[in-house]
Amino acid sequence: MGSDVFEIISVGNELLVGKILNTNAHWLAKVITELGGFVKRCTVVRDNVDDISSAIEESMKRGTNWLIMSGGLGPTYDDKTLQGVAKALGRELVVDNDALKMVEKKYELMAHRGTVKKFDLTPARLKMAKLPKGSKALPNPIGTAPGVMTDEGDRKIICLPGVPGEMEGIFKESIVPIIKNVIKNFYYEESIHTTGIVESDLAPLIDKALVNNPFVYIKSHPKGHEEGISKIEIQVTAMAEESSIAKKRVKDALEQLKSMIIEHGGIIDKEDMK
Amino acid sequence: MGSDVFEIISVGNELLVGKILNTNAHWLAKVITELGGFVKRCTVVRDNVDDISSAIEESMKRGTNWLIMSGGLGPTYDDKTLQGVAKALGRELVVDNDALKMVEKKYELMAHRGTVKKFDLTPARLKMAKLPKGSKALPNPIGTAPGVMTDEGDRKIICLPGVPGEMEGIFKESIVPIIKNVIKNFYYEESIHTTGIVESDLAPLIDKALVNNPFVYIKSHPKGHEEGISKIEIQVTAMAEESSIAKKRVKDALEQLKSMIIEHGGIIDKEDMK
Repeated sequence: MGSDVFEIISVGNELLVGKILNTNAHWLAKVITELGGFVKRCTVVRDNVDDISSAIEESMKRGTNWLIMSGGLGPTYDDKTLQGVAKALGRELVVDNDALKMVEKKYELMAHRGTVKKFDLTPARLKMAKLPKGSKALPNPIGTAPGVMTDEGDRKIICLPGVPGEMEGIFKESIVPIIKNVIKNFYYEESIHTTGIVESDLAPLIDKALVNNPFVYIKSHPKGHEEGISKIEIQVTAMAEESSIAKKRVKDALEQLKSMIIEHGGIIDKEDMK
Repeated sequence: MGSDVFEIISVGNELLVGKILNTNAHWLAKVITELGGFVKRCTVVRDNVDDISSAIEESMKRGTNWLIMSGGLGPTYDDKTLQGVAKALGRELVVDNDALKMVEKKYELMAHRGTVKKFDLTPARLKMAKLPKGSKALPNPIGTAPGVMTDEGDRKIICLPGVPGEMEGIFKESIVPIIKNVIKNFYYEESIHTTGIVESDLAPLIDKALVNNPFVYIKSHPKGHEEGISKIEIQVTAMAEESSIAKKRVKDALEQLKSMIIEHGGIIDKEDMK
């Protein structure tokens, strides 16, 4: 896997009391995978400096190349992600000039528009410009808190806000170009849908297809029963240095799977037989 | 927190390539919190024995009282959760008589209904009845793979299938009664919605409310801007040994917050002023 191992850390009590569904981790995992990255783990921790810093330390020990964090960058007392990063890396939090300019510009604009009464750099606002020493501020095209990128040796820790639009905006603008420059893998996936064969009878067929197609990953997703007929989605994925190779590997494995399933009395959805 | 610290481990590549949204962890976090449990962390790992076992070991080291796992209990080659549990705890996987009876009964029923051609105990089917030594099989009211509960000292590891309906069914039937018997906390939460005050101006008001209400947790969720007006949801939560106390603490904190917000020119949604 080399330099393409990613982990995601989501920060926020709201995720761990079941108030908010973790759509951020889902979005990040999808985009990173499509870019050819390998997402090895995702962790969700509370708004607690020790929990955040220990999750970062554990990830670093596992040799993660890219640690993508979301949540906890705002102005309130429980936005503690940067304190957690500073603690994990043994760095100070210092006012960053670029970050400060970004924050100031946002509030000047808000004051101009009347969204805030006046622009002054309150402690809550200044907080968003205090980054772990040696970090780079990433412009937030939508909200106020800048994103943060910190190099630790040859690893990168990237902190994004928890508000989905802000997270996506910073990631697309500042991070995707860097990833594209480094990672040269291509990911391809395709799914077919079967009925009339249960997962335990599909299992040995998948085993055979995997022996014949060693570079793909095959996964079955049971989708329940309808009138006693079992429905299963089968997903085949591959990663390769050429997108055409990844695609061919997936297509070949799917063709073999389809033949075997039909031979065993299963039915492939019409759409998937085209 | 004592004996009420929970962690959730979700197992499945499909979560880490962004194919499936982790609704299971969300559901578990919500239900456990409502039962008075404290969900401290959620981890998502791939279908890989080493990744699963190291996540379990790490959770045990952190002193988790209840480890709830979902995914990876089925009949296919990549259903590896029980191998991961066995490795982490240094136990063998052995055919469990109760689990075997549960699996056999399901396939007998399917053969009777014609869902499978005949009932025989293929290796893929037997796999679901092999549990870490000393575990207890939990009936699956919907699907085939039994849930699994393993005691490790005074800690519990509970493994549930990844199919949401099966996970929820086993959890409600077999786990909720056990949790209710042990945990005597009550959780209460309520939210209000404000406009016209930005999060950085709300921050010092939240700080004040927290000083006056030390037993609650207050969290602001920015919901974006509409025509330049900032919208924020403020969530107040409390846990207490009596539900009436938890509720009173939340209500008191909310009243103080509302007064302060109005004083500072913010507007509380009509619905929340009732």
